Amino acid sequence: MASVYLKNLKISLFGESHSQIMGATLDGICPGIKIDFDKINKELNKRKACDTLSTDRHEMDDYKIVSGVFNGYTTGTPITILMENRDVDSSKYENIKNTPRPSHADYCNIVKSLGYNDYRGGGHSSGRLTAPLVAVGAICKQILSNKNIYIGSHIKKIHDVIDDEFDKNNYYEEIIKMNDESFPVLNQEKKQMMIETIKLAKSNFDSVGGEIETVVYNCPSGLGEPFFDSVESEVSSLLFSIPAVKGVSFGKGFAFSRFFGSEVNDSLYYDGEKVKTKTNNNGGINGGITNGMPIVINTVIKPTPSIGKEQDTIDLLKKENVKLKIEGRHDPCICHRSVVVIESMVAIAILNLYISREGRLSMK
Amino acid sequence: MASVYLKNLKISLFGESHSQIMGATLDGICPGIKIDFDKINKELNKRKACDTLSTDRHEMDDYKIVSGVFNGYTTGTPITILMENRDVDSSKYENIKNTPRPSHADYCNIVKSLGYNDYRGGGHSSGRLTAPLVAVGAICKQILSNKNIYIGSHIKKIHDVIDDEFDKNNYYEEIIKMNDESFPVLNQEKKQMMIETIKLAKSNFDSVGGEIETVVYNCPSGLGEPFFDSVESEVSSLLFSIPAVKGVSFGKGFAFSRFFGSEVNDSLYYDGEKVKTKTNNNGGINGGITNGMPIVINTVIKPTPSIGKEQDTIDLLKKENVKLKIEGRHDPCICHRSVVVIESMVAIAILNLYISREGRLSMK
Amino acid sequence: MASVYLKNLKISLFGESHSQIMGATLDGICPGIKIDFDKINKELNKRKACDTLSTDRHEMDDYKIVSGVFNGYTTGTPITILMENRDVDSSKYENIKNTPRPSHADYCNIVKSLGYNDYRGGGHSSGRLTAPLVAVGAICKQILSNKNIYIGSHIKKIHDVIDDEFDKNNYYEEIIKMNDESFPVLNQEKKQMMIETIKLAKSNFDSVGGEIETVVYNCPSGLGEPFFDSVESEVSSLLFSIPAVKGVSFGKGFAFSRFFGSEVNDSLYYDGEKVKTKTNNNGGINGGITNGMPIVINTVIKPTPSIGKEQDTIDLLKKENVKLKIEGRHDPCICHRSVVVIESMVAIAILNLYISREGRLSMK
Amino acid sequence: MASVYLKNLKISLFGESHSQIMGATLDGICPGIKIDFDKINKELNKRKACDTLSTDRHEMDDYKIVSGVFNGYTTGTPITILMENRDVDSSKYENIKNTPRPSHADYCNIVKSLGYNDYRGGGHSSGRLTAPLVAVGAICKQILSNKNIYIGSHIKKIHDVIDDEFDKNNYYEEIIKMNDESFPVLNQEKKQMMIETIKLAKSNFDSVGGEIETVVYNCPSGLGEPFFDSVESEVSSLLFSIPAVKGVSFGKGFAFSRFFGSEVNDSLYYDGEKVKTKTNNNGGINGGITNGMPIVINTVIKPTPSIGKEQDTIDLLKKENVKLKIEGRHDPCICHRSVVVIESMVAIAILNLYISREGRLSMK
Repeated sequence: MASVYLKNLKISLFGESHSQIMGATLDGICPGIKIDFDKINKELNKRKACDTLSTDRHEMDDYKIVSGVFNGYTTGTPITILMENRDVDSSKYENIKNTPRPSHADYCNIVKSLGYNDYRGGGHSSGRLTAPLVAVGAICKQILSNKNIYIGSHIKKIHDVIDDEFDKNNYYEEIIKMNDESFPVLNQEKKQMMIETIKLAKSNFDSVGGEIETVVYNCPSGLGEPFFDSVESEVSSLLFSIPAVKGVSFGKGFAFSRFFGSEVNDSLYYDGEKVKTKTNNNGGINGGITNGMPIVINTVIKPTPSIGKEQDTIDLLKKENVKLKIEGRHDPCICHRSVVVIESMVAIAILNLYISREGRLSMK
Repeated sequence: MASVYLKNLKISLFGESHSQIMGATLDGICPGIKIDFDKINKELNKRKACDTLSTDRHEMDDYKIVSGVFNGYTTGTPITILMENRDVDSSKYENIKNTPRPSHADYCNIVKSLGYNDYRGGGHSSGRLTAPLVAVGAICKQILSNKNIYIGSHIKKIHDVIDDEFDKNNYYEEIIKMNDESFPVLNQEKKQMMIETIKLAKSNFDSVGGEIETVVYNCPSGLGEPFFDSVESEVSSLLFSIPAVKGVSFGKGFAFSRFFGSEVNDSLYYDGEKVKTKTNNNGGINGGITNGMPIVINTVIKPTPSIGKEQDTIDLLKKENVKLKIEGRHDPCICHRSVVVIESMVAIAILNLYISREGRLSMK
Repeated sequence: MASVYLKNLKISLFGESHSQIMGATLDGICPGIKIDFDKINKELNKRKACDTLSTDRHEMDDYKIVSGVFNGYTTGTPITILMENRDVDSSKYENIKNTPRPSHADYCNIVKSLGYNDYRGGGHSSGRLTAPLVAVGAICKQILSNKNIYIGSHIKKIHDVIDDEFDKNNYYEEIIKMNDESFPVLNQEKKQMMIETIKLAKSNFDSVGGEIETVVYNCPSGLGEPFFDSVESEVSSLLFSIPAVKGVSFGKGFAFSRFFGSEVNDSLYYDGEKVKTKTNNNGGINGGITNGMPIVINTVIKPTPSIGKEQDTIDLLKKENVKLKIEGRHDPCICHRSVVVIESMVAIAILNLYISREGRLSMK
Repeated sequence: MASVYLKNLKISLFGESHSQIMGATLDGICPGIKIDFDKINKELNKRKACDTLSTDRHEMDDYKIVSGVFNGYTTGTPITILMENRDVDSSKYENIKNTPRPSHADYCNIVKSLGYNDYRGGGHSSGRLTAPLVAVGAICKQILSNKNIYIGSHIKKIHDVIDDEFDKNNYYEEIIKMNDESFPVLNQEKKQMMIETIKLAKSNFDSVGGEIETVVYNCPSGLGEPFFDSVESEVSSLLFSIPAVKGVSFGKGFAFSRFFGSEVNDSLYYDGEKVKTKTNNNGGINGGITNGMPIVINTVIKPTPSIGKEQDTIDLLKKENVKLKIEGRHDPCICHRSVVVIESMVAIAILNLYISREGRLSMK
């Protein structure tokens, strides 16, 4: 297996859901960047399970930066972030060792690892591993915001509840506002309806999916490559690393299929000196390269596969079909917890493309 | 700029729409593979503009393999495919040099290249560059089919016309059948309606978008990585390299957002010795790793941005807003021509993951 | 900065000489490999400063594998090795903060890190960082020895004392024997003379250099690539990562310059079924690819730059030339401690090439 | 096989000694660089066999840049250089198909390619393939010289004839002078003696080896990485891709083994504002990072393995030991032709490290 991101930034992710320590090494950051540890904490808190809508597993998500930062500033050497897994209850997982949970990675991991996988809590494939990624993303987000590039999201949809759209004339303020929310929805009424839907799913021992819209505001034009490393390639590649993401689109996305070109082409115009497009159906990207308009990304999150209801599965030892009732602790919905993970991945992708064009020292 | 795919397979793509020669180098193929040149031709023909639904630019798409193949077999050294651009009419492009076409890569390329781009016909960002990629993909597809792994697609949707679904009990035959079509649609009536829609768009000097569904049949389980190199990451990353692709999803894709977990979880069961899932909402992938079920990929193609209607844009020299009427030659719809490009990209991604697990010599 | 090795195996190295924790993440190892922790300890002990010939800094070099190993077997997920730095005395390094030590990386690191480097003990550039690399190498060496590929070395030269040559008819036994030595020299008399030379250097507050010869025995033919990833490229690239290595050669190495082709060409012959060469002047590699003969590598280690004698250097704050007397703790010779580091790097390179040809699962 | 260099610059090399076309694709060059085609020709001429000291195969080494350059300037898209092989005489190679030439890559290639290799003229492993690398290197050298970074070499040694040393106070002039020579030696008398030695080898149907010293003058400090991507790693990795290179060292190189630290440490001092070292035994590199002093590289070239004398080898079909007399055309010495190949590889490595630190757009 390989859990390494190898671009201008390099990220090596390690650990298992129930290993004592997990973490990530981030390589390629410029020396002399002041690290805002509070901001990392704030981002980690958003990912944490801290409310009645989430799992009962409560990890502190304390992190320790053990290298690459000296006197509060990056030195340019690899930055390693370590986190401990403390609230670990492996007892519940013995029964899934040979009875893979439907729609989970269990069966795939058994095949892939020839049966040597650490099955406890999903092992390396657990959502827990997104915690160090959020810490890495928080550093990238800081560097981008130093360059006045901002990333924000709202939960666009949970089941059949759909949020309002971002105010296209007011992206900056709405992004900043959404960044402060642990359950970011523009319309407060819709937010309540979403929460009710999740509670309903929970009370039914069920789970529910949703969609997140993420915007990168003020990203310079000219980032990305025509082939293989298009902005969409780079962003989607990272987003599809997040467990439960099953679709990624840009701008009008899948809706493009039902339009004529004349309806969705984005006309160019001069807004003073600045080149803009009247509409932004392409989500800030043409031919794989940013055009200076906000980058608009849609990500769909499938319903958490861990549900309390009895399900059909197999017993790999007995080689027979069996029933499974998952005990453990799990989330009825992970959309809100995924928001900061999505933003972290987007931050990594955008910073990486930024460095590719502007050079490593431009980060400072 | 970088147009290099750097995994177990390495692909270096080069050329411009109006350069004399364009091509690709494919590195990492095992020695001793017999190349079926007719199959490469057949795939290239599907991409070619050869009917009234497509551009009037008629390239032969003749290709020459100048290295890495000796006496009809691969030698293991880099395989370079060269193609000539003969039917080149650069005269029509002088006027777009400084008036970027809406929703095209023109403006982005000017910014990215600091104004040194070859603007003729879209330069390196042209859809022409997908021709060598199809030749590369055809080689990968051959190797996969030697391993009984098959890739096929149908046009799922053009505007508001929606094709039937694949017969899930009969994938193999339907894939083989679709592979023979240059406009692959399962339902013949729907096919006619799609063609009518495209003709309508053409007569209106307009264009239209659509959606392609692609299936990888008989792919072994255990391919892909939990983070960064998930099957979805690898496939989407390549698909988003294709000009006009704005969304990629797997299995139920964006529809996941409106379901409860109990409705969409894929139960496991034994079909004799073989492990299968009753439904395939996850499109053959869990936790980034193949589970042995068919891989199901959805790709949305935006309407071709080149339309004959007058549009608003800017003049970069005069620094003012202007009107533009695109002359040149262009397609009212590229969905059918994109099918083989999508399949090529999928073939590259799957072969790459196959080698990653099974080793280079396993190709033989 | 980047401290990442990105081939079929991926290694991410992190930490500083005086950071609390340092370590490495090794990615790409097959699941199901039994880890022999004693062998890792044995290798680490060889690198450790444990005699009167070495520094007075005494680290335990205890390591902890925190991920990727479950019930004693690799799972296929990233393997992270952590080590603590306990015997840290940073006080001695305040005076070198602005007065870089001659022939050390100090000045280069200040420039590279824009002055933000962790200067204590050489920071990330310290020889301490080779400890986690030895742990990584020990795992690779185990996997290779499971395949009957063995790596061994002797100290060929210290100052003007030259060891005997390996018995070419008895490589296996001599390699195994050298593997047990912390100061591996074939001729015991020469070994004593080398030790005397080092003691002399120490008593003079000086240091001394030397040369190591390393042999990979029983490596299969066909590994390596003709360009860019030749065996020599891969091995030298890793060896030149070791601080103090200033030259690498293969087979007859630099001596080739004074011979005619007829004197040094290696004739081929059949030894039963097996193809061998009568001589092995090319050190087991032709055209970048292994030929099945023992791989013979020579590495020169410069004298440790840290010496007790007064030296000339600069004061970067006062911007003037000054005298420097290095206090701290340092080694009069690092040749013997380097042996296991060199072998670790060679093991990584060879295992990587082995996987490249034979596939990941071949490791098992 | 992989013939791809994958750093900030990406190079994909393709072709065979007797294929109709060979070439290379260079990716990662900044847009807006003016290409000096004459300089490329001049470099190619130095590599060409054009005198009585070299092979009788006479290739024009005409090249065609088919992409990535528009109106004489780079566009930022991949630059592909094509060359034709015209003076091809494959008849002489039928007899080596199954009787591998001693010390050549023949046997290794047969093993590696499972017998599917293009054996004519050495196939992909031929020295012919260095021609496109020289064209790539010439572009890199141009960009470096625009930055006042200069690369030059002299033949330090052929057999027992040793050239004078570079005048350390006059590097720039001597480098420029050596750049104009096709047989660059500082001392004219020594040059004549070297030529006599080569003629002697030729008349004896033999060949001879030598050593090249290369200097990078005015390279900025701070390039290179502490581990894995040290300057020495990057340079050696590329130099060991050149057929016949068997050793690479930096500064005092292998001579370091016979010195005490106090004799070879490079003291730092201020030369006005500029930091320099009094001696340059480390060849401009400390801890893998440039220190601003000239980078000094030594490369040993083994005697050409193709000699006219009868040699022992094997017949792989008959499985027996046989005698071989190589006909074909070959060089009694390739040291002088290698100089520009070495410099090309060094130019690629240094430009790559320069971009890594300064950013892609800094090339302009």
